[in-house]
Amino acid sequence: MKESVPGKIKSKRVYTGKVLSLDLDTVAFPDGSVGELEMIRHPGASAVVPFLSDPVGEDPQILLIRQYRYAADGYLYEIPAGRLNRGEAPHDCAARELKEETGCTADKLDHLLSFFTTPGFTDEKIHLFIATGLVAGETKHEADEFLDLEPMLLSRALQMVEAGEIVDAKTALGLMYAAGFRAGH
Amino acid sequence: MKESVPGKIKSKRVYTGKVLSLDLDTVAFPDGSVGELEMIRHPGASAVVPFLSDPVGEDPQILLIRQYRYAADGYLYEIPAGRLNRGEAPHDCAARELKEETGCTADKLDHLLSFFTTPGFTDEKIHLFIATGLVAGETKHEADEFLDLEPMLLSRALQMVEAGEIVDAKTALGLMYAAGFRAGH
Repeated sequence: MKESVPGKIKSKRVYTGKVLSLDLDTVAFPDGSVGELEMIRHPGASAVVPFLSDPVGEDPQILLIRQYRYAADGYLYEIPAGRLNRGEAPHDCAARELKEETGCTADKLDHLLSFFTTPGFTDEKIHLFIATGLVAGETKHEADEFLDLEPMLLSRALQMVEAGEIVDAKTALGLMYAAGFRAGH
Repeated sequence: MKESVPGKIKSKRVYTGKVLSLDLDTVAFPDGSVGELEMIRHPGASAVVPFLSDPVGEDPQILLIRQYRYAADGYLYEIPAGRLNRGEAPHDCAARELKEETGCTADKLDHLLSFFTTPGFTDEKIHLFIATGLVAGETKHEADEFLDLEPMLLSRALQMVEAGEIVDAKTALGLMYAAGFRAGH
């Protein structure tokens, strides 16, 4: 396959929204052909696996949230997460969302990895962190957030992934990655 | 928190596309309040972790693809995956996408888990499978797919997740889940 320089030829904004925008882009593909792609533009997000006890201790406790998700027509178990504000660094966003959704501040917030949620149609990237040394405080939910705090053992959360009771991708990924992080220390 | 029955009040189709559609929905939240949500409607997808050797043998070989992704402005390592056709069962979609993208047919295709990719703004769900007993054949790419086959050891792929060289969520999730599946047998 002869590779040309692929990328954007032109972009047409179809919709500008509160959370996301939709572009219809004309794209040069690697073989030189040209096509149109629908592309959801998203500012990106941070997500946090919060440890309530020593992450390298025996079966540590973590803090999940149980949140109403219209897209799922019900409640999902998730790790705390939220969109980046304009110009906000992923680390700051992680600290802010952790505080807003759980009331906790973290002594330490380590970046684990960053990933594309679904690169077939959006540029959304989630930056995943692990939070340790948590100190409790007041929550500050946004108007359309409905959530409860769900502390649980990491082993239990991993069982819930296995059993299909945790079905949010960033959460399953974060829990499995944190378990590996733990094992690697 | 007093819970009413949350859900859709009305839905306005803002854009109908080839891959996705965008709705602006008026939603009743769990506290009885009403708001608007942007919701990307997606048919769902299947993804496959293909094992080229015995998945419970020592450090098995898997088959990744390296694919041009406009959203990522470059090439991503991914597991084979694609959208459900109308009325298509996730298992059939997994077998079809595996065949189209890698040329392989699988003796066995086991469902691992299904997850929401990013439930804040889309109903997209990915159904994740593990494929074993692969038999090679001809590939049949779609017009806008540009990909190379990348066989590698599972241990190497997991290192690439750790090193931030594999940044596709379904792929990182699939690899870690398959490693756990393997360990559990």
